[in-house]
Amino acid sequence: MAKTTVVAIDAMGGDNAPDIVIEGLAQVLKKEENVFFLIYGNEDKLIPLVKQYKLNPDKFKIHATTDVIKADDKPSAAIRNGRESSMFKAIMAVRNGYAEAVVSAGNTGALMAISKICLGTVSGIDRPAIAAVIPTLQTPAVVMDLGANAQCNSQNLVEFSIIGTALYRILFKKERPSVGLLNIGSEDTKGRDEIKEAASVLKTLDESVNFYGFVEGNDIGKGTTDVIVTDGFSGNVALKTLEGTVKMVSGTIKRLAKRSLFSKLIFLLALPTFKILKKETDPRQYNGAMFVGLNGISVKSHGGSDAFSFACAVNRAISMARHDLCAQIKKGVEDLMRQTEEKE
Amino acid sequence: MAKTTVVAIDAMGGDNAPDIVIEGLAQVLKKEENVFFLIYGNEDKLIPLVKQYKLNPDKFKIHATTDVIKADDKPSAAIRNGRESSMFKAIMAVRNGYAEAVVSAGNTGALMAISKICLGTVSGIDRPAIAAVIPTLQTPAVVMDLGANAQCNSQNLVEFSIIGTALYRILFKKERPSVGLLNIGSEDTKGRDEIKEAASVLKTLDESVNFYGFVEGNDIGKGTTDVIVTDGFSGNVALKTLEGTVKMVSGTIKRLAKRSLFSKLIFLLALPTFKILKKETDPRQYNGAMFVGLNGISVKSHGGSDAFSFACAVNRAISMARHDLCAQIKKGVEDLMRQTEEKE
Repeated sequence: MAKTTVVAIDAMGGDNAPDIVIEGLAQVLKKEENVFFLIYGNEDKLIPLVKQYKLNPDKFKIHATTDVIKADDKPSAAIRNGRESSMFKAIMAVRNGYAEAVVSAGNTGALMAISKICLGTVSGIDRPAIAAVIPTLQTPAVVMDLGANAQCNSQNLVEFSIIGTALYRILFKKERPSVGLLNIGSEDTKGRDEIKEAASVLKTLDESVNFYGFVEGNDIGKGTTDVIVTDGFSGNVALKTLEGTVKMVSGTIKRLAKRSLFSKLIFLLALPTFKILKKETDPRQYNGAMFVGLNGISVKSHGGSDAFSFACAVNRAISMARHDLCAQIKKGVEDLMRQTEEKE
Repeated sequence: MAKTTVVAIDAMGGDNAPDIVIEGLAQVLKKEENVFFLIYGNEDKLIPLVKQYKLNPDKFKIHATTDVIKADDKPSAAIRNGRESSMFKAIMAVRNGYAEAVVSAGNTGALMAISKICLGTVSGIDRPAIAAVIPTLQTPAVVMDLGANAQCNSQNLVEFSIIGTALYRILFKKERPSVGLLNIGSEDTKGRDEIKEAASVLKTLDESVNFYGFVEGNDIGKGTTDVIVTDGFSGNVALKTLEGTVKMVSGTIKRLAKRSLFSKLIFLLALPTFKILKKETDPRQYNGAMFVGLNGISVKSHGGSDAFSFACAVNRAISMARHDLCAQIKKGVEDLMRQTEEKE
């Protein structure tokens, strides 16, 4: 019998909580047998919802919490005052070994700050980062950091490359995923100093990291490399620009479809194709920003998640837990240290 | 009679020069009467081309040049050794008052460096920037900087906001375009220090700049503001990500259209709609990165331009020249200085 994966759920975070959270868990349970949820939140709200969405009672336990971290709470305030919140309690379940992963659609800054304090970082990793999977013309890509570190030094970028390699390997079963460093030109002379320094280190690490070289913004959609590494500012801008552009194109399609009776008819006939298009290019399918470099798995679902995308985030967390991401990252860091020592 | 605008053309820059350059000029002349081109490049190549594309001989003069700045020449080397190049000579035509604007599809770094040295910056502007127009769900937007300044301080970002306002006003006839500062969150506490500082200055400048506040990557496609201001690294990443994403979506549509005979048929029937979609979302329609903040108009066409996009860049340059962008920017800077003095 396969091992059960226990996931702690912050049911109160996000714009549409706790409804979409419970509906999302019901969607996960339709396809997933070996999972158990520790659900943290307002019991009065949760009990009717688990009935409404017919959650299998063998598959979850509700832990009543009284407090909620709000979307505009500062991370520092959330750490100080949020001990009784659904988010804090869910993270503590991972820290205390009762759950293997935590998923929340709540305040990103608070989730990162509390995850960092409660779980700690993998030994040898300076700063945790946020990673996401995005659609490309080829296979999906992992992009990181997406906002945890607005400014990064070269060491951070090297560490992200190691973490990204481990993550991609787990999610997409590719032994040596290629890693590109986001820059504003492919020539060695372009870009910021920390990027050039990181590139020169990565070139020497061919055992741990399959370094491709510099990539540019348009390489993200092309799928030039499996992993794209950048600082949190540029990564956040790139991911959000990608999301916005997909919406811009699909919005333009919808507007054009309404132009005439003929175009309406064509659009109707093409609807199945557009549904696949939407599915394949929809950033929601890949929902679940992964906080990586921590001693534990913490996944952030979009604040505006619907049930489908929340379920995607939970499935992502389950996959990371089953393949023991933290151990893989630890191994990557140890390999890096060994290689660096051997060269010295 | 309308005044003739004289544009200097570097005919030798870019992957497909000089063919697409001359073809592009022919396209411009089909719709544009009051323009005259000073074409710089290899005479032996240019003479057959102007015949082939039937360029009206009243509308241009070829200036023979012997040297070409290559795509991989460093800007410093281009300045030192490139005096006889088509690019240098074309820029000098603006400096010497023979042309009102220069357009090149050549080496971006060299074009910026030579433009900066030969034309100088508008008094009060520290650094020139690269601006572009991009498609959004609403009206087009101006984004800057796109790579001239990989790192920016708050003063640079404020200046870009003033330049962007003047540029948008000219291109889209809107008196008080809204300006957004690209950040990784809309809250005042998020982002890098220089961005927060720039925001606090911009809030006090309501006469010169209609400051909206922070915007994020997804606001670019949404068209939240008319002008989006950011440092050259993030701007470059955002613009190239946008281009790559449009290609990713259109590539996915093409692949899906080939799935079955039925979908092929539908795609064929929908072709006119897709052509409009392509036109409306195609970054090429807005080709022409504008170097702004200079005492002269310098426009960079994509290195991989075709005739259509080169023509767009030339039209952009003509429009900027006719509305005297440099004078408008100068006025914006003077207003800023006056407002700052009044407050002190």
